[in-house]
Amino acid sequence: MPSDTILVIGGGPAGMEAARGVASLGSKVVLVELRDRLGGTPDSASYSSFTLDHRSASEVLKAKREEIEGDPLIDVRLQSRLTAFEGAAGDFRATLTDIKGEVASVGCASVVIATGFEHFDPGRETQMYGYYEYEDVITLVDAEKMMSAGKFVRPSNGEPPKAVCFIQCVGSRDRRIGNEYCSKVCCGISSKQAIEVRELVPDCKVFIFYIDMRMYGFWEDRIYWKAQEEHKVNYVRGIVTEIIQKNGRLLVKGEDTTMGRPMEVSMDVVVLAVGMEASRGTREVGPILGVKQEKHGFIEPVEDAFDTVSTSVPGIFVAGAAAGPKDLDDTISMAGAAAMKAVAVARRAAVTA
Amino acid sequence: MPSDTILVIGGGPAGMEAARGVASLGSKVVLVELRDRLGGTPDSASYSSFTLDHRSASEVLKAKREEIEGDPLIDVRLQSRLTAFEGAAGDFRATLTDIKGEVASVGCASVVIATGFEHFDPGRETQMYGYYEYEDVITLVDAEKMMSAGKFVRPSNGEPPKAVCFIQCVGSRDRRIGNEYCSKVCCGISSKQAIEVRELVPDCKVFIFYIDMRMYGFWEDRIYWKAQEEHKVNYVRGIVTEIIQKNGRLLVKGEDTTMGRPMEVSMDVVVLAVGMEASRGTREVGPILGVKQEKHGFIEPVEDAFDTVSTSVPGIFVAGAAAGPKDLDDTISMAGAAAMKAVAVARRAAVTA
Repeated sequence: MPSDTILVIGGGPAGMEAARGVASLGSKVVLVELRDRLGGTPDSASYSSFTLDHRSASEVLKAKREEIEGDPLIDVRLQSRLTAFEGAAGDFRATLTDIKGEVASVGCASVVIATGFEHFDPGRETQMYGYYEYEDVITLVDAEKMMSAGKFVRPSNGEPPKAVCFIQCVGSRDRRIGNEYCSKVCCGISSKQAIEVRELVPDCKVFIFYIDMRMYGFWEDRIYWKAQEEHKVNYVRGIVTEIIQKNGRLLVKGEDTTMGRPMEVSMDVVVLAVGMEASRGTREVGPILGVKQEKHGFIEPVEDAFDTVSTSVPGIFVAGAAAGPKDLDDTISMAGAAAMKAVAVARRAAVTA
Repeated sequence: MPSDTILVIGGGPAGMEAARGVASLGSKVVLVELRDRLGGTPDSASYSSFTLDHRSASEVLKAKREEIEGDPLIDVRLQSRLTAFEGAAGDFRATLTDIKGEVASVGCASVVIATGFEHFDPGRETQMYGYYEYEDVITLVDAEKMMSAGKFVRPSNGEPPKAVCFIQCVGSRDRRIGNEYCSKVCCGISSKQAIEVRELVPDCKVFIFYIDMRMYGFWEDRIYWKAQEEHKVNYVRGIVTEIIQKNGRLLVKGEDTTMGRPMEVSMDVVVLAVGMEASRGTREVGPILGVKQEKHGFIEPVEDAFDTVSTSVPGIFVAGAAAGPKDLDDTISMAGAAAMKAVAVARRAAVTA
């Protein structure tokens, strides 16, 4: 007898919204999460705010967490992972193993993969930025953490900076490290953070060194123009080739490609706009579920202009950054679409049975 | 007694996918479309192919149309428009009027607005490109029409061109004409078309003049890099200020901002990458439904990081480019999410009744 339950793997924004969506349609959900609470990367990395949503990320996540934990149709399994999987669409069987080694078998009609992404580690391969050498070279993630605590200072001395720059495309658009894709959100998040730095440290000069500002749709005027016009953020089209320490500050060397001249500027903090990579969770569940993954490890959706969430295995769907670089809008919309399709599979299985 | 029917307004990709999604969950749909067949702008404007989907757009749309017309839960009302609307979430009443003036009253639990976009008319305000003056100045839409017919020629003489350029951001990122936003898809579609021109006319040189190439996510390597490396498309960061006719060709004047020098190049065809504007359908239904619209006329979704489709009126959702510039992935994901939420409203209303 097929189950009418939907298995959602991953408790970040995609998984939370997929679970909520399924439950809103009256179907049961088992929501599996590796960590000890829901929230995903925005929670574990202490995001300050989501782009274009002005509320605090931790408040948004807390409200969403409470909504899900209070829903009788959603069975949340924390500190658990998928360890085995078999069956076919409408009648799958998943084995979940928790942190104590206890094993549970869950029947499910369909599956939503929502295993998110990982931030690129700029110390790993891109040594020219000195991320592991200099305390004042940080990432967007480190910056979000400071901003969540309501401050922005030089990590080396706790003083407010006089000049800060963001360097775009760290770990993205880069064939040498194997990440040819654009990570989609870093331009927007850098611009959002640049505004926040200007608000927290009003006399600090803020620069963004970029190749192309990918401020698509309404991000163009609501963030990019606003950053320049209202907050006096300086955008410089340029390539940074080296960062060295000099007189207690960071000397950023490169080329201003618009002016066509070499560039050497002193900064107090350098923020590396790190991109997205396939998460360990994605790399782990892909082979267990038997779904096709593209060469970087992301889950590969089917090639269909009218379908963004179906994978190579019928009855298994993907939502959010498990499928590649996605912004939060992509993630939430995909989660809704995946919830719809996952419930449709359960419904079809019930009708057929 | 509340209805369990969902009203979907607009029969383009967003409306078709929302209707299909609702029906897949077992709910009834009334799908209203102004034109005499489903397909929306990709159909009326004869799109050749969708970006990243290699199949013919007309074949994809035909299959989708047949799927919808064959679904007993979907009631398609062609050549009809919404003319009045009242009620509250779970119990709305819509008045539809068809081309003959016949009026129908439809009870519905919830609504999905899927009224799409319109292409910017470059002859309307941006006279410097000579769209109405020169036959060989065309738009992405005109180019798609030619490509759908399997050819790419100079409209003025029917000969294959020796040099073609695309000009980005026509009607977008432009405060003078009032469209400050980025239209999101034009960079990708221009690059896709540039590849197609190179395939159709192998000895034709192809240039793309741009401000920032917004090739986010996998579009970066799968289209942008491919266009440059495999198809030898030339990308020039530059601003075009004037197009004039000279010796039977088009003289494109402007500035190459990377080289920092004036630019004067002769072209046989100039393709204007026109952006998206709010459609007449969106402008028409917004006030009837009473939903909030942003200043350009697009439907404004609520400000919620975890909700991309709810409007200011509970029970009324929006999918696709009716909500602003969207790519096809956005549109299809939003349609799925809107279908899920629309059915959830109907379900809640039925439980409460």
